Amino acid sequence: MTIPLELHPDRLFPADPSTRDLARALYATVKDLPIVSPHGHTDPQWYADDPAFPDASALFITPDHYVFRMLYSQGLRLEDLGIPPRPDAPDARSIETDSRRIWRSFAAHYHLFRGTPTRLWLDHAFHTVFGIDERLTTESADRYFDHINASLATPAFRPRALFERFNIEVIATTESPLDPLDHHRKIRASGWRGRVVTAYRPDPVADPEFDGFAANVAEFGRLTRQDTATWAGYLVAHRERRAFFKSLGATSTDHGHPTAHTADLSASECQRLLDRALAGTITAVEAEAFRGQVLTEMARMSLDDGLVMQIHPGSFRNHNPRLFARFGRDKGADIPTRTDYVRALKPLLDAVGNERNLTIILFTLDETSYARELAPLAGHYPALKLGPPWWFHDSPEGMLRFREQATETAGFHNTVGFNDDTRAFMSIPARHDVARRIDCRFLATLVREHRLQEDEAFALAPGLAHDFAKAAYKL
Amino acid sequence: MTIPLELHPDRLFPADPSTRDLARALYATVKDLPIVSPHGHTDPQWYADDPAFPDASALFITPDHYVFRMLYSQGLRLEDLGIPPRPDAPDARSIETDSRRIWRSFAAHYHLFRGTPTRLWLDHAFHTVFGIDERLTTESADRYFDHINASLATPAFRPRALFERFNIEVIATTESPLDPLDHHRKIRASGWRGRVVTAYRPDPVADPEFDGFAANVAEFGRLTRQDTATWAGYLVAHRERRAFFKSLGATSTDHGHPTAHTADLSASECQRLLDRALAGTITAVEAEAFRGQVLTEMARMSLDDGLVMQIHPGSFRNHNPRLFARFGRDKGADIPTRTDYVRALKPLLDAVGNERNLTIILFTLDETSYARELAPLAGHYPALKLGPPWWFHDSPEGMLRFREQATETAGFHNTVGFNDDTRAFMSIPARHDVARRIDCRFLATLVREHRLQEDEAFALAPGLAHDFAKAAYKL
Amino acid sequence: MTIPLELHPDRLFPADPSTRDLARALYATVKDLPIVSPHGHTDPQWYADDPAFPDASALFITPDHYVFRMLYSQGLRLEDLGIPPRPDAPDARSIETDSRRIWRSFAAHYHLFRGTPTRLWLDHAFHTVFGIDERLTTESADRYFDHINASLATPAFRPRALFERFNIEVIATTESPLDPLDHHRKIRASGWRGRVVTAYRPDPVADPEFDGFAANVAEFGRLTRQDTATWAGYLVAHRERRAFFKSLGATSTDHGHPTAHTADLSASECQRLLDRALAGTITAVEAEAFRGQVLTEMARMSLDDGLVMQIHPGSFRNHNPRLFARFGRDKGADIPTRTDYVRALKPLLDAVGNERNLTIILFTLDETSYARELAPLAGHYPALKLGPPWWFHDSPEGMLRFREQATETAGFHNTVGFNDDTRAFMSIPARHDVARRIDCRFLATLVREHRLQEDEAFALAPGLAHDFAKAAYKL
Repeated sequence: MTIPLELHPDRLFPADPSTRDLARALYATVKDLPIVSPHGHTDPQWYADDPAFPDASALFITPDHYVFRMLYSQGLRLEDLGIPPRPDAPDARSIETDSRRIWRSFAAHYHLFRGTPTRLWLDHAFHTVFGIDERLTTESADRYFDHINASLATPAFRPRALFERFNIEVIATTESPLDPLDHHRKIRASGWRGRVVTAYRPDPVADPEFDGFAANVAEFGRLTRQDTATWAGYLVAHRERRAFFKSLGATSTDHGHPTAHTADLSASECQRLLDRALAGTITAVEAEAFRGQVLTEMARMSLDDGLVMQIHPGSFRNHNPRLFARFGRDKGADIPTRTDYVRALKPLLDAVGNERNLTIILFTLDETSYARELAPLAGHYPALKLGPPWWFHDSPEGMLRFREQATETAGFHNTVGFNDDTRAFMSIPARHDVARRIDCRFLATLVREHRLQEDEAFALAPGLAHDFAKAAYKL
Repeated sequence: MTIPLELHPDRLFPADPSTRDLARALYATVKDLPIVSPHGHTDPQWYADDPAFPDASALFITPDHYVFRMLYSQGLRLEDLGIPPRPDAPDARSIETDSRRIWRSFAAHYHLFRGTPTRLWLDHAFHTVFGIDERLTTESADRYFDHINASLATPAFRPRALFERFNIEVIATTESPLDPLDHHRKIRASGWRGRVVTAYRPDPVADPEFDGFAANVAEFGRLTRQDTATWAGYLVAHRERRAFFKSLGATSTDHGHPTAHTADLSASECQRLLDRALAGTITAVEAEAFRGQVLTEMARMSLDDGLVMQIHPGSFRNHNPRLFARFGRDKGADIPTRTDYVRALKPLLDAVGNERNLTIILFTLDETSYARELAPLAGHYPALKLGPPWWFHDSPEGMLRFREQATETAGFHNTVGFNDDTRAFMSIPARHDVARRIDCRFLATLVREHRLQEDEAFALAPGLAHDFAKAAYKL
Repeated sequence: MTIPLELHPDRLFPADPSTRDLARALYATVKDLPIVSPHGHTDPQWYADDPAFPDASALFITPDHYVFRMLYSQGLRLEDLGIPPRPDAPDARSIETDSRRIWRSFAAHYHLFRGTPTRLWLDHAFHTVFGIDERLTTESADRYFDHINASLATPAFRPRALFERFNIEVIATTESPLDPLDHHRKIRASGWRGRVVTAYRPDPVADPEFDGFAANVAEFGRLTRQDTATWAGYLVAHRERRAFFKSLGATSTDHGHPTAHTADLSASECQRLLDRALAGTITAVEAEAFRGQVLTEMARMSLDDGLVMQIHPGSFRNHNPRLFARFGRDKGADIPTRTDYVRALKPLLDAVGNERNLTIILFTLDETSYARELAPLAGHYPALKLGPPWWFHDSPEGMLRFREQATETAGFHNTVGFNDDTRAFMSIPARHDVARRIDCRFLATLVREHRLQEDEAFALAPGLAHDFAKAAYKL
């Protein structure tokens, strides 16, 4: 039996008719604005080489940990979903390589995603990108698979064509300081008009607990012709690579530390920590201090070079050691933890919090900090702004909680619009659409409760959908 | 003046007419489903001996700490409510023994419960169980008292008759490993068709800080003919009692620790902790390690015997020492505290988190963990599922927050339906009714906002009301 | 272009028509009740001397950190807003003294307040107090400035006239134990009928980390003719000043500690802490113990003298050291932090928590404690009640979260109505109006969802608007 798949034009709007009408009217003014995607993890090679995506499973399942973590939680094996083990995985067992069988498993469990944003994004992509008008079920699985694969084989489904069809004004990727940025150079040299920029993510040379840290820092030195075993040289190396990233369009840096801890230590103490980090003798507490010191240094460099700084703290990475040993990073086992900002950020804020020409964008996985810490901080410090709901909170309820809990203290103008933060290319239009709908819904609710005037809601809607992100990220 | 008492058929549904209509239609499909009560604290003696309940006050007030804690908070004395002091209480003073006077005090303060779930449950029981159609007030107090008492004297108000009238398919009680389970044996021998099962709650022999721990462990050894002074014998004793509980219907274990701390220590360290626990020389930190080790051992045993594991952490028990000295445990002075899961559960999850044939159900009294920790954990680990809102959060707002905060990351299928978790027998139908109404309301809201299709809501409603609990608890 | 400024009669009510109708009906019964303002920071000199307020900027901007913190966060300089630096500020630079230019800056940035309670309060004051019917914009800035200034020059805009026009039944200010209360004496002697009372706020002599603590304690001794270098004398000094405050109308004390930590130490340990505090050798941990001990002593004194105790914990004061060095306290740089109550309050509650004739009102800046800690504590301990949403949470969303999260466990009767807690005189009617509207909205929602009967909502509304505060504070 075929079940229809429709995207209702009023989805995510509240049921109250008068509020819905206004939400719809606000949304009409922003739904076709181009997409500004200032933070994400798509692969620049797509835009450089414009290859065809291989097939439905490789597009929607194996690279998307939102998808396979849910399937895994309900008893499916990652091997049976085609997730490749690490080459050095201890107990290699057979991995499913038949994409159609992977797709059928996914389809048979599609009901698990009811009520999740993943379901909204997938249905949006199936319907608007691939023109599918029946629901994914066991029965329709093969038709989906064949139709998607046939589409992917056509030029209209190559990355650049989709980029244009998605109406992306600009997208940022995220690269390591050690990355030669060849893809970005190739994009620029190609004459293609799509705007793709990089962002500076220094974890491999900023986190002493990162795999291969000492080798990375040595390579960092070679690339920049600096002695990165000295604190002074290490800092210059950062400045040089930041400048190189900037030359390829970067307007921001990104930092994904376990906590929001920052430090502002003496140069001699910094040298001591660097020595121990390079020697592999650094303790966990010292590693945290080192990472915290790098944040403060990055903020100081941003004062000079103008790069916008993003802090994404609070994830306990690789919580599941068996899964990590077998499959490696980014397999859905990163779990948020309680995160303090008030004390953790103080050293950095003491140094640069009052700077009016600096923008530090704070994210959180701990929603309790919205009203208690983040909105009060952003509503005071000139250097701080609030990033949008992130990761597990990039969802309708998560976005509503953010606006409800942050707006009264921080206002709208201390927020920076939406980030999709995704490696799932097909989900980008869906994610921005959800954000635009929820923001319009929030504005409509304020108006209908006479907490905001209607003209002000219409003035704010394009800001939240497009302009604030463009301005905050200097894009 | 008589004030009518009616239960509105649309209670707990949202005011928006279209959402309400759908909530009502969903509820119509689940309201008459039998009750599965997989976790609770009713007295098995009721089902074994089928005695009459003594009177209105003894039924509704003296055993229900939800009721008398509110009265106490507003200045009533527990003695005046007939709460018996401990036999060894230092300063015994006169206790009210006149049930009618106790009832009148309660009635005179019934307004204190406005806006609380206790009020919803009481009104539900008064109206649906006792057929009362006027509100409880000072003026109606005596009519209530006489009518309830007259009812309780009739066979239709005996526990077994009510069990059947309440349409209980199965109910679990909770017993200590030292309990001979005589009531459960008697129920089984009686030929009565009501299904009552036990659950294994090992606190008296698992918590070194439990009153009489060493004596309990010795008794545990006698019951199982094991040397429970050795770690190996102690573990075998657990396995044997679990098997005995299972023979009397148990499908689950229950663990109510102060935190979610778990451990996975060497056998020699376990022996050392057991030695110190039995000698009474164990420190608070060691006691926490011991309890955490028992949790991990229980999980391993569940892998073998299939019992579903429930973890109920986060209550600061007996917060009020004066009240405890005078009246003992469970007198409304247990207060929730902040609870970490991400680090606390790691030793247990490292050991068994990836097991697909194990079910560990997590509860919380710290709602901040729903979106931040519990939903991400349950949305990844195959062994984990989320229990329903518990204790103070077993309420309309609490249930809505749970669904709103957990569903987007964990989905519905990583949740396990409703637990009433009560010792208040009369409240059981009311509590399940509230849960069914709120879940139907939540589903209706998702549909009306086009976040879920209508057929999917109708498919989920019986799962949330009945099937998920039955399946998760293997009942 | 002139944009109208209207206050919609249904503002802050929900959009659903049936709920809105009932909210409106409930509000009609409370909107004209007199204002009971049991906790705030208005200047008693206003009521004593009845001076004219100087001008629009000095009235609305320079004294209101809610206003200028938002402007500062968006890059305006405090100097340009006329905020005076400390006399000893290291790098004094020119400060704007032209009120009209300050007002124009404010007007040009008025859009920053969209969606904030500050905007609601300001518009309310502009419209209801000054009769302005156009929105504040760059274009209307001068008309606003001239009109407000002209109004302020008239007798009808003097503090006493406004006090009467605002229909304030009683207002409390907050003074240090070292304050001679001359303004309060003058008010009483004046024959004016406005009721203004003081409240006892002992931070300058209770917090060893307060500027000038030792000198303050010495002065405290001189005032009371006690040897405040002894713990016994120090306690008697408190008793004497409390009695003096009570003679000038005080019914309460107020305590704004960094945490909710309390202590109940031996007299010798108290003396040791006092010695170290006076010698300036006290550690941070000891200072916390001293403050915690004072709280417990204050509670014991309240048992004797009947003063209601208020605890306002959880603010990290003066988070921005550069701003503090330049402008001093209360400049918008106080940031809430995570606050524990369950363990922190235990020493105090062990001492006096069961007292039925004591009222301790708890406030929080950490909303996660509402459902988890505060409502369970207040729903048990006779001495505890819950204060209203405070500071950043004195807002429509903050009030809704409080009622939604606290009511089910604590009920309404363990709450104490509204506090405006403000130094912004013009905002007082607006703040009370917001609270009344939100409470009526909350009650209406409960009724429309059949969780409360309509007659009960009408019975509760005046309690939440007026009676509960009057009773809890013994006013």
